[in-house]
Amino acid sequence: MTHVNKLLGTLMSGALVLGALTLPAAANAMDPLVKPKVVFQVSESDPAKWNLALNNAKNVQKDLKGATIEIVAYGPGIGMLKADSEVANRVSDAVDSGVKVVACGNTMKGQKLTKEDMNPKIHYVQAGVVELMDRQMEGYSYIRP
Amino acid sequence: MTHVNKLLGTLMSGALVLGALTLPAAANAMDPLVKPKVVFQVSESDPAKWNLALNNAKNVQKDLKGATIEIVAYGPGIGMLKADSEVANRVSDAVDSGVKVVACGNTMKGQKLTKEDMNPKIHYVQAGVVELMDRQMEGYSYIRP
Amino acid sequence: MTHVNKLLGTLMSGALVLGALTLPAAANAMDPLVKPKVVFQVSESDPAKWNLALNNAKNVQKDLKGATIEIVAYGPGIGMLKADSEVANRVSDAVDSGVKVVACGNTMKGQKLTKEDMNPKIHYVQAGVVELMDRQMEGYSYIRP
Repeated sequence: MTHVNKLLGTLMSGALVLGALTLPAAANAMDPLVKPKVVFQVSESDPAKWNLALNNAKNVQKDLKGATIEIVAYGPGIGMLKADSEVANRVSDAVDSGVKVVACGNTMKGQKLTKEDMNPKIHYVQAGVVELMDRQMEGYSYIRP
Repeated sequence: MTHVNKLLGTLMSGALVLGALTLPAAANAMDPLVKPKVVFQVSESDPAKWNLALNNAKNVQKDLKGATIEIVAYGPGIGMLKADSEVANRVSDAVDSGVKVVACGNTMKGQKLTKEDMNPKIHYVQAGVVELMDRQMEGYSYIRP
Repeated sequence: MTHVNKLLGTLMSGALVLGALTLPAAANAMDPLVKPKVVFQVSESDPAKWNLALNNAKNVQKDLKGATIEIVAYGPGIGMLKADSEVANRVSDAVDSGVKVVACGNTMKGQKLTKEDMNPKIHYVQAGVVELMDRQMEGYSYIRP
C-alpha cells in the first residue's frame, strides 16, 4: 500500500494544482486572493461621460483597494485623451494614481491625431475594441459608463 | 489490484467533483442546471433608457423562467429609483416580480439624496460600479441598455 | 509497480483532458487555440452608433483574423437592420464578410415590423437581450458601442 499511498498523495497534490489552474472566473468573487480587475469603455464625445468614467474609477480605487483599473477610449471618446481635453488634468491624476489609460490607434489614424496631440501620460493600443475583448478574456469586468 | 481499483474509483469520483467545481463560466450556457443571471446597468438620466431596461428585464423573465435579474442604477441613472420617478410604478412592479433593484450609495451621497427620497422597495449598495464588477465576477451577464 | 505506473499514466492523461475541459474563460486570452468571440449590442436609434458598431466589427476582423463576430440589434437600435436603413449596404457587407447580424423578435413585434421590412441578409432571435446573455455565457466578450 505504500506505493499506492504515495501515488494517492501525488495525485491529490496534482488535483490541487489542477484546481488552482482551472479556477473559473465565476469563482473569483468568492476568492479573497483574486485581485478585481475592471476595464472602462469611453466611446462618446460627451465630457459628462468622461467625468463619470473617472468618478467610477475613483470609487473602485476607494472601495476595492488594489484593484486593477483600465480606461480604453476609442471612436468619439478619443477626445477625452487629447492634451487639450477639458478633463486632461483628471486623466493625468488618474494615471498618477495607478489607472492605465489607453487610446485606440485606429481611431487616432482615422482622426489624423498624433501622439503630440495627446495627453503625454497615456498608453496606446492598435485597436481599442480588441483591447476591450482581450481584457474581458483575461477576466476583467467590463463597465460602459 | 483491488486496492488499485478502489483507488481508481476514488480518484475518478474526485475528478468528477473537481470537474463540477471548476466548470467554467463559458460552459454554463450548455448546462441546463445553471440558472442564467443578468445585471442591467442604468447610468443615464433618460426615462426612455429606464423603460428599456425594465422592458429588457420583463423579456428575460418571459423567455428565461427562473433567471436571476438585477438592475443597478448609478450616476445620472439614480433618478430612475426616486420615489417620484416617472417609472416608479414600473420599478415597484419589477421588484414585486422578483427583480432586485439597487441604488448606488456614492451617487446618493453626491446628490444629497436620502432613503426618504427613494422608492421604498429598492436595495442599496456602497458603490454601484463595484456591484457591477462583483456580479460579473460571479458569472452574471452584463447588459447596458 | 507496473499496474500503478499504468494507473498513474491513465490518471495523468485524464487530468490533462480534465484540464482542457475546464480551462476557464480567464485563461483563454493566453491560449492561441481559443478563437476570440465578440457580441456587439446596438440599442440606440443613432446612425452614428450603427456606423461605430460596424467600424468596430471591421477592426476586429482586421486585427483578430478568424474571430467570431455577432451584432445584436434591439429596442430603438432595430432601425439599423431595416431594409431602408441608411447603413443597409454596410450591414449587408458585414454579413457577406462573415459577421452574424440578428434582430430582436420582441422589438419587431412591439414595432409591428415584419421580415419584409428588414434587411434580407439578417437573422432573427426571440429576444435580443437573451441572445446577449447567452453569448456572454458562451464566453463571448460584450461590447456596447
